[in-house]
Amino acid sequence: MRVAFQGEPGAYSEEAAHEYFGPVETQPFETFDDVFAAVTSGICESGLIPIENSLAGSIHHNYDLLLSHHLYIVGEYFLRVRHCLIGFPGVKKDQISRVISHPQALGQCAGTLRKLGLKAEAVYDTAGSVKMLKASGERTTAAIASKRAAELYGMQVLQDGVEDNSENYTRFLEIAPNPVVPEGEIKTSIVFTLKNMPGALFKALSVFALRDIDLTKIESRPLPGKPWEYLFYIDFIGLVSEETTKRALDHLSEYAIMLRVLGSYKRFHSL
Amino acid sequence: MRVAFQGEPGAYSEEAAHEYFGPVETQPFETFDDVFAAVTSGICESGLIPIENSLAGSIHHNYDLLLSHHLYIVGEYFLRVRHCLIGFPGVKKDQISRVISHPQALGQCAGTLRKLGLKAEAVYDTAGSVKMLKASGERTTAAIASKRAAELYGMQVLQDGVEDNSENYTRFLEIAPNPVVPEGEIKTSIVFTLKNMPGALFKALSVFALRDIDLTKIESRPLPGKPWEYLFYIDFIGLVSEETTKRALDHLSEYAIMLRVLGSYKRFHSL
Repeated sequence: MRVAFQGEPGAYSEEAAHEYFGPVETQPFETFDDVFAAVTSGICESGLIPIENSLAGSIHHNYDLLLSHHLYIVGEYFLRVRHCLIGFPGVKKDQISRVISHPQALGQCAGTLRKLGLKAEAVYDTAGSVKMLKASGERTTAAIASKRAAELYGMQVLQDGVEDNSENYTRFLEIAPNPVVPEGEIKTSIVFTLKNMPGALFKALSVFALRDIDLTKIESRPLPGKPWEYLFYIDFIGLVSEETTKRALDHLSEYAIMLRVLGSYKRFHSL
Repeated sequence: MRVAFQGEPGAYSEEAAHEYFGPVETQPFETFDDVFAAVTSGICESGLIPIENSLAGSIHHNYDLLLSHHLYIVGEYFLRVRHCLIGFPGVKKDQISRVISHPQALGQCAGTLRKLGLKAEAVYDTAGSVKMLKASGERTTAAIASKRAAELYGMQVLQDGVEDNSENYTRFLEIAPNPVVPEGEIKTSIVFTLKNMPGALFKALSVFALRDIDLTKIESRPLPGKPWEYLFYIDFIGLVSEETTKRALDHLSEYAIMLRVLGSYKRFHSL
């Protein structure tokens, strides 16, 4: 089995793929669009995409790609994001004066970097910053990335867990060409648009509340070409083929202009 | 009166400030954090920040800054974003081979750039790309930015309206140290967190639906340090000091852990 992920080898997405699937062949792609294309065309059997980070929020472009492609969500995984300060082997932490990484990783370590008196500089990618560091040969520069990235490029972890907030998790979704029939506690993800009328969202949520269906996430995205109208993405507990869920979605279709089920999958219990 | 905005001179935020306020002194700041700090400290009387684009979605960092600062929303404005292809005076469009701009602007013009056979390269800012182009002296490169940026740097608009989708609007908020008592049709913005219980959001929305209060926007953001709990930002039609609104917010406080009014302001009718 081959799993597509976005980023350089050693990216957090690749780390998540190895934790989630176990030993598996992973294939890096430059963009999320490329990951969706690789799974659609069959180059990879599935893809693992980040959808939400507990500190930074949703990765909106992936919500848009879920809508524009006809793949299914077949699983989820929560990765504890543990940033490492990475330098050349043999280098001591007090020899470092400059740190490179993706702006979001630098932001999540801003407190630590300030304490260590290090100058931060933004580059395009976390794992990519280790690759760049290695190529540059600059022994007074460090990178911030995953432990896996350090190992992959033969570099040294100078300090582990340099993130300011330890409640740093990323939720990943597994995407595949066909839906699955999952077992255990099930989550279902849907996307819909609503008729533009007062109380529309309230009515939409009522179809779940009236049936005691538990929502775990709601996200809104602009509808391209229709300013200030929205797509709503909802995750709820329940299997799409259950009677209660069927009735709820049937009820929802009374208020929705468009309604699509993105997939039912086993809920991941991380916390 | 002095208005703070984020970006280089000629940024879309500055264009919006001149359309919204009329003739006014504007002051550029490097980051949104700096804009909030300038208004808080009194360096500027108010600030104009983008909060949502009809194609790209919400500017989440500004939602976070509204929460972390004690400023009020006192107005809103919708800017029609019209991207211009900008080159050196005297240069013809068919002499151009490369285009620089902010990745989001390049993305919004991808179709046009493909048709013109132009290679796109990402830089940090739209107006900044015109500044960089001018400094580089490269006459076969063009930038994508506002008309105002072209005028400011003495450059030439080679083509106006190069965006692929004309439904491209950005909603701006005016922020100030004190609330206003607006006239006409009024919008109010609030932020709240909910007790973690089934149907929590449904109950929260019911306080508006049961009183026929029209919601215009809902946005969720992660609550730092509490993975998978959310802050909700809601805009609705109504003045905070009206009896119906007061009752709705009082009702909402039964379900909310935290509830804050960010401001009441005159609704802008753009469309």
